Amino acid sequence: MPKSKFVKESLTIMTEMVMPNDTNTLGNLMGGNLMRMMDVAGAIAAQKHSNRIVVTASVDNVSFVNAIPLGNVVTLEAKVTRAFNTSIEVIVNVFSENIPAGLKDNTNQAFLTFVAVDQSGRPIEIAEAIPETDLEQELFEGALRRRQLRLVLAGRMKPNEATELKAIFDL
Amino acid sequence: MPKSKFVKESLTIMTEMVMPNDTNTLGNLMGGNLMRMMDVAGAIAAQKHSNRIVVTASVDNVSFVNAIPLGNVVTLEAKVTRAFNTSIEVIVNVFSENIPAGLKDNTNQAFLTFVAVDQSGRPIEIAEAIPETDLEQELFEGALRRRQLRLVLAGRMKPNEATELKAIFDL
Amino acid sequence: MPKSKFVKESLTIMTEMVMPNDTNTLGNLMGGNLMRMMDVAGAIAAQKHSNRIVVTASVDNVSFVNAIPLGNVVTLEAKVTRAFNTSIEVIVNVFSENIPAGLKDNTNQAFLTFVAVDQSGRPIEIAEAIPETDLEQELFEGALRRRQLRLVLAGRMKPNEATELKAIFDL
Amino acid sequence: MPKSKFVKESLTIMTEMVMPNDTNTLGNLMGGNLMRMMDVAGAIAAQKHSNRIVVTASVDNVSFVNAIPLGNVVTLEAKVTRAFNTSIEVIVNVFSENIPAGLKDNTNQAFLTFVAVDQSGRPIEIAEAIPETDLEQELFEGALRRRQLRLVLAGRMKPNEATELKAIFDL
Amino acid sequence: MPKSKFVKESLTIMTEMVMPNDTNTLGNLMGGNLMRMMDVAGAIAAQKHSNRIVVTASVDNVSFVNAIPLGNVVTLEAKVTRAFNTSIEVIVNVFSENIPAGLKDNTNQAFLTFVAVDQSGRPIEIAEAIPETDLEQELFEGALRRRQLRLVLAGRMKPNEATELKAIFDL
Amino acid sequence: MPKSKFVKESLTIMTEMVMPNDTNTLGNLMGGNLMRMMDVAGAIAAQKHSNRIVVTASVDNVSFVNAIPLGNVVTLEAKVTRAFNTSIEVIVNVFSENIPAGLKDNTNQAFLTFVAVDQSGRPIEIAEAIPETDLEQELFEGALRRRQLRLVLAGRMKPNEATELKAIFDL
Repeated sequence: MPKSKFVKESLTIMTEMVMPNDTNTLGNLMGGNLMRMMDVAGAIAAQKHSNRIVVTASVDNVSFVNAIPLGNVVTLEAKVTRAFNTSIEVIVNVFSENIPAGLKDNTNQAFLTFVAVDQSGRPIEIAEAIPETDLEQELFEGALRRRQLRLVLAGRMKPNEATELKAIFDL
Repeated sequence: MPKSKFVKESLTIMTEMVMPNDTNTLGNLMGGNLMRMMDVAGAIAAQKHSNRIVVTASVDNVSFVNAIPLGNVVTLEAKVTRAFNTSIEVIVNVFSENIPAGLKDNTNQAFLTFVAVDQSGRPIEIAEAIPETDLEQELFEGALRRRQLRLVLAGRMKPNEATELKAIFDL
Repeated sequence: MPKSKFVKESLTIMTEMVMPNDTNTLGNLMGGNLMRMMDVAGAIAAQKHSNRIVVTASVDNVSFVNAIPLGNVVTLEAKVTRAFNTSIEVIVNVFSENIPAGLKDNTNQAFLTFVAVDQSGRPIEIAEAIPETDLEQELFEGALRRRQLRLVLAGRMKPNEATELKAIFDL
Repeated sequence: MPKSKFVKESLTIMTEMVMPNDTNTLGNLMGGNLMRMMDVAGAIAAQKHSNRIVVTASVDNVSFVNAIPLGNVVTLEAKVTRAFNTSIEVIVNVFSENIPAGLKDNTNQAFLTFVAVDQSGRPIEIAEAIPETDLEQELFEGALRRRQLRLVLAGRMKPNEATELKAIFDL
Repeated sequence: MPKSKFVKESLTIMTEMVMPNDTNTLGNLMGGNLMRMMDVAGAIAAQKHSNRIVVTASVDNVSFVNAIPLGNVVTLEAKVTRAFNTSIEVIVNVFSENIPAGLKDNTNQAFLTFVAVDQSGRPIEIAEAIPETDLEQELFEGALRRRQLRLVLAGRMKPNEATELKAIFDL
Repeated sequence: MPKSKFVKESLTIMTEMVMPNDTNTLGNLMGGNLMRMMDVAGAIAAQKHSNRIVVTASVDNVSFVNAIPLGNVVTLEAKVTRAFNTSIEVIVNVFSENIPAGLKDNTNQAFLTFVAVDQSGRPIEIAEAIPETDLEQELFEGALRRRQLRLVLAGRMKPNEATELKAIFDL
């Protein structure tokens, strides 16, 4: 069993400029291109925690509230929230900045899970991720509920067994 | 109010070959690249229904179960499930095919929502989407539950008001 | 000798949105980018017929009549017309759609030929392609004339031996 | 009427290295990517002759005989052969070179036609192209036959009116 | 005159994964692709300092000592060193990491200069950059020498007037 | 020791059209993209001289004086200036042309060095490069000074040992 790590050790910061080919007819970043960036940032954070090749296992519900126009700078901050047996949950926060105008928004937040694998693609056991700050602790605890929601949505857990999930739905 | 349409009128089929730059270290399609393809296919289906420019509003939980290797043919089938006031839910089914080996899998399924907008990006009222087959009818009805789940997850609806959602969790 | 197939089994539909980087100075899809899309769509149709890796052998004369502007949806429909010993002729029809404006044109049509090969690139014998509809029958018969024209243009057949070709030139 | 130019003034040399994403499953340059390069090289040659924006009007039959592997250097030489009223025929010769192995082949040859247009896309009258060498003279004369073949294939000229074309078919 | 800023306020971290199309025949990141990444990272740092659109004015001598293989994670850290009248010098440090192998190198370092411009591309006066740490102070002072070297190499300053430059050459 | 070659044998001409995705917010070619093109052109010239795989060793100071707008044609002319033991210096001249406007500028000039390597990446001895014209002779001689400047800047030569370099600084 590999040695546990602090979640902060996985912090990955990715900065991108929105290029013409990333945009839709209105000149804003296409949702699918932002998801591609989230996937790369999240995978690097999961690699840093596990020191393994990782593959994407799932992406939780992502909302797109603010448009991100051509020329804006997009910053993605990815950090592991919790490690399970062979899978790793990562939170990715997206910031959009129009630097000449001095505007910066936290436009999106997403949770992705990755599985650590060996060279032939077989899952491998990974180290624990230790939260330190209050926010990290809160994300660590919420990871259990989000995991149950994923299993229920994928039809791999019965809703009435999802005891932790009830906390989300206040039941 | 625009004239209603049958959901089948929005069917969009997109076929792509997995190219070297789409792959990860193991030689398989990266999750983020598949999400970009889903977004484009879904947006075209939503355009076909609304005859409007559309922007991505959300992507529901997506699972990546089967690896899709370099050289495989990826087919995405996108179809509107239901139209709300200004938003449109689309289902995207992904098939991966190794043609020389004669193997074809339904690797992923995702629900995306789009908002129809005018040239200045303001939401516009859209036509109803009429289901015909049993499967279309089932997807039409489920759209209400999935919408409540999105609103609860985004903190815009209280869980105890999500009456339809209870059907998912069998409460 | 592999088992024959119906030509309709090779039908491949590819949908693309015209992105900024695909366009020329006038904001329209560049001819060369459309040819790249035709090549991918045609290759997948030829793969579906032969269940083999295929390589492009030739592209017949292609005309570009209508400009396809940025943001339009391009649909390519590729279908095998006839299989020869180791080569396969495919027809690709291109449709351009400005969905918000409700305009759709059949902008281009092209015939491409592919050769089925094994892993070391050597040509392999392929199954017959059986036409069913009147249009498929007509394309099947025309394939012989188009093949003679290719051989004459490549200097590999003497014009006076191209007996079928005379039908085109009404001689 | 703009002033005539020598055909050699349009000579355009384009050199590209075959990158991973340009290749097919066998590791060779995909036909469609080579056609995209031909289109760019040809368009620049046509621009040089006409000093105008140009759009692709047609590509004549192209054969792909030799595979061009990853890492090879591709050189395209494009030169105007003849200018008609508003259209320009360009010949593009493609050379593939494995420099470490000391191998160089003339892998493809293609004729493309371009139309010179103004900013709103309307065709514009262009200068004559004056051939000087024997080869340029031969290409200049052949342009008439190739043009008739294009018109016949596009259904815009009756075969029995294509007097020049008869020279090709030796009738 | 805009208000001065601390150099640390411009810190920009960019993380990229080496993709197949970024590599050369040996499977390592091509020098030119790394320079493109440096340019984007540096431009964002210069934007953060000036709150303006910036254009690249020069890149100083860059050495490529260590190969960066496919799949490695490249981290670029860019920070302003000194602002002159309308130009900004930025240092970019490049780290290459093979995470599964636990290897991380500082592979390259480069100095780039950017000019802050208005919407019509005219240079604009910019704020001072205030160094705080010893390293920042040292980079701030060295900026003068590097600037003289650029001017001498561009033929815009006579070597014997480059008083600061003599410190480099120990004269 | 391989047989010497004339420098003119390495001449490599690369022509590119500035595409939307190559441009910055002002619609001009980004510096980093031009550097990527310079690297590819230079590497091909160094390959032609050495008949070997080459890797980029360094890029000298590059200035960006003239903006190169979208749609312009960029021509890069690369030629070896001198070969040392295992490294090759190449000069790359960049021309930018607005063909419809009849404008052509020599916008940039850069010196890059490459190392010839075998399949496992080990440096290999290379042939001499023989200058013929006066300009080639001048570039051949200057290569020694530029090499010393690189070594001094990289901290691998003491400034007072850089005897040739003094010629640049007129000391």
